[in-house]
Amino acid sequence: MTVGLGTGSTAAYAITALGERVRSGGLRITALSTSQASEELARRSGIRTASWDAVRRFDISIDGADEIDGRFRMIKGGGAALLREKIVAAASVDEVIVVDPSKIKGELGAHPLPLVVAPFGWQVTRDRLEQAFGCAAAVRAAVNNQPLVTDDGLHVLDLQFDGALPDPDTLEARLKAIPGVLEVGLFIGLCQRLVVGYDDGRVKEFVPGDDILTATVPS
Amino acid sequence: MTVGLGTGSTAAYAITALGERVRSGGLRITALSTSQASEELARRSGIRTASWDAVRRFDISIDGADEIDGRFRMIKGGGAALLREKIVAAASVDEVIVVDPSKIKGELGAHPLPLVVAPFGWQVTRDRLEQAFGCAAAVRAAVNNQPLVTDDGLHVLDLQFDGALPDPDTLEARLKAIPGVLEVGLFIGLCQRLVVGYDDGRVKEFVPGDDILTATVPS
Repeated sequence: MTVGLGTGSTAAYAITALGERVRSGGLRITALSTSQASEELARRSGIRTASWDAVRRFDISIDGADEIDGRFRMIKGGGAALLREKIVAAASVDEVIVVDPSKIKGELGAHPLPLVVAPFGWQVTRDRLEQAFGCAAAVRAAVNNQPLVTDDGLHVLDLQFDGALPDPDTLEARLKAIPGVLEVGLFIGLCQRLVVGYDDGRVKEFVPGDDILTATVPS
Repeated sequence: MTVGLGTGSTAAYAITALGERVRSGGLRITALSTSQASEELARRSGIRTASWDAVRRFDISIDGADEIDGRFRMIKGGGAALLREKIVAAASVDEVIVVDPSKIKGELGAHPLPLVVAPFGWQVTRDRLEQAFGCAAAVRAAVNNQPLVTDDGLHVLDLQFDGALPDPDTLEARLKAIPGVLEVGLFIGLCQRLVVGYDDGRVKEFVPGDDILTATVPS
């Protein structure tokens, strides 16, 4: 199987668990990662990695999410890998999202919405976004307090709206109409399966159409 | 004045001419360029250059175009600088486009439409574009025959449609819905002034609303 590997703390758990099954001989997979961090973790875990020269689609991909609503619409990008994550998700037959129940929301937007922007003129892109959408846009900083540089050499702006995201189904296109906005951390129609893990070790699985808002409330 | 400098052969003529006026003492400008090539040419021409730390808008910008139609819609990106050119155009009070009459077209699309794409997975982005839009998509090559790397570290795909561009007013949003497509070389509503230079040295100037299709036919 060809497997897409997400980025972030949840994806790291999945990569480690996949590696254990590979090393025990039960699993034969080739993986492509959405970040240098996940790529290194996969290699250390004993997972065979491939490049785009050999891969065009993924049988399955495993990733996390910052928020997911009842219609399986997600905010992603807390790990700054949203550009690569969306490319892999769109190329995946079965995109599996793993979350804890705290990520499931009635509406999206408590978590800031990450955008990937061009470093060239990011300041005017930020100003234009704030003016056009009435939101606060903050450039994500690295440990050196300079704008964070993604694996693709780009910057991230985190958009905080006053309340829920305005019309999520059209928001991505409206944001991408601003020059300099290269990708939007809204993932719609890209989750084929949701795996919810609870504190007590229980796991529940859902597919689009399931009522996750009531079904995932811990009993 | 703050001046945005485009990229390409036409912009290079403009930069050289601006430099002559600066050196003769008649012009006091600060410029920001849309490529490393234009930046170097501006410096060599004696033009003072600035960074985005000091610039938020441009009084005027000067750039070329690969095609422009009767409604001032343009195809740009032959010089691979379309991402930066669009950011500067959107921040310009007066975007001046300089062309020769051969660039003025009844409909857009004889020239391939350049897209900026993420290097990560550009092969699946290309395949998806060809399938979704029924066009041919070729990665632009550098002199070493590898995919060209733009000043922003990205790749360029050139889209050739069978005939004219399908519905140019909505095409950009439809293309940007494909993950990995970061910018589109369609510039709509971004040209405030068109300067047409003829072989015989004559120059004509037009603004949106003018009938350039008949007015620019050489007499």
